[in-house]
Amino acid sequence: MKAKIHVTLKNGVHDPQGQAIGHALESLGFDGVGDVRQGKYIEIDLVDSTEAAAQEKVAAMCRQLLANTVIENYIIEIDG
Amino acid sequence: MKAKIHVTLKNGVHDPQGQAIGHALESLGFDGVGDVRQGKYIEIDLVDSTEAAAQEKVAAMCRQLLANTVIENYIIEIDG
Repeated sequence: MKAKIHVTLKNGVHDPQGQAIGHALESLGFDGVGDVRQGKYIEIDLVDSTEAAAQEKVAAMCRQLLANTVIENYIIEIDG
Repeated sequence: MKAKIHVTLKNGVHDPQGQAIGHALESLGFDGVGDVRQGKYIEIDLVDSTEAAAQEKVAAMCRQLLANTVIENYIIEIDG
């Protein structure tokens, strides 16, 4: 079973990494580039879990380690 | 129009960030954690583009800036 986790900055939180990417894209000549946001994408292989148990376990991982829930949101997908 | 881009390490490429996450999860008491891989997730707002043009433009962005195609794969989704 595989968990796919997206960790993204909440709306309104300043994203200097995303801004740097936006500026770099403009410097390279790409036009029509608006807001750019960068987040993390994490894949975790899980052994011996049901889908519900995996979902709950990964949510605990996000709260405790993977996301800073003050400024970040997380989305979890579990693939069987 | 919004582009959602996943940049992930190719299979077989060593992922120390992912390993560090795996070790940290074990230290926190999570069991049954297998391989962990960390990638990047980038969202780009695009102005005035058709879906086909956006797809092509973002692929060029990935090749030129967002991904190191020697060691990384990229996946592009375009949301209308």
